[in-house]
Amino acid sequence: MSDVARETGDRFQPKFDAQGLMTGVVVDASTGEVLMVAHLDEEALAATRETGLAHFHSRSRGTLWCKGETSGNTLRVQEILVDCDQDALVIKAQPAGPACHTGARTCFYRRLADDGLLQRIAS
Amino acid sequence: MSDVARETGDRFQPKFDAQGLMTGVVVDASTGEVLMVAHLDEEALAATRETGLAHFHSRSRGTLWCKGETSGNTLRVQEILVDCDQDALVIKAQPAGPACHTGARTCFYRRLADDGLLQRIAS
Repeated sequence: MSDVARETGDRFQPKFDAQGLMTGVVVDASTGEVLMVAHLDEEALAATRETGLAHFHSRSRGTLWCKGETSGNTLRVQEILVDCDQDALVIKAQPAGPACHTGARTCFYRRLADDGLLQRIAS
Repeated sequence: MSDVARETGDRFQPKFDAQGLMTGVVVDASTGEVLMVAHLDEEALAATRETGLAHFHSRSRGTLWCKGETSGNTLRVQEILVDCDQDALVIKAQPAGPACHTGARTCFYRRLADDGLLQRIAS
């Protein structure tokens, strides 16, 4: 597939990197807030589309995981957006609970302050 | 640095992957919309913090690039959020123009429809 066709066409042709992964950005479908970033391989993408629940590939464990499979804090997919070169997805989802394994609503609960330290901003 | 210290502490200790990269999600500081996803190495992160303009590492060219250096469509950084394990950033920025090289406001201008095809949603 040419770059132009990939960028302008209506054919979904996800581009996985050398590790077989693409980036998934999960956004709260209600608020638009970024909740987490994780990676999808072909298997995780298929599982996400089939079940309507966000699945990812764990780079550390090397396995498929359904977000929330143990915690119950699943992410129900409402819409998937695809970027120009089809190597990243925005997954708009309804979270069943805190998205972060730390218990925070979002994984992005700290900001980088001018002094170079991290400041907590969300709970 | 322990996982707990990385997740709960105030020390910024970005975690780069085996390719020396971390994920950057650029969000429009005014609207919260996700504009693009790109990758930062240590050099791009330093350049972003020093200049206040979003810089990335091009995986295809293997070089540092300042977003908008040729198009003029720079991204002025307003705030940087860091996720729990410090391997991804949300970069809240003010775009000087369309964020996407195709001329679209955001790189995420298509949605994956139920029939498996891509539908254009943004201009």
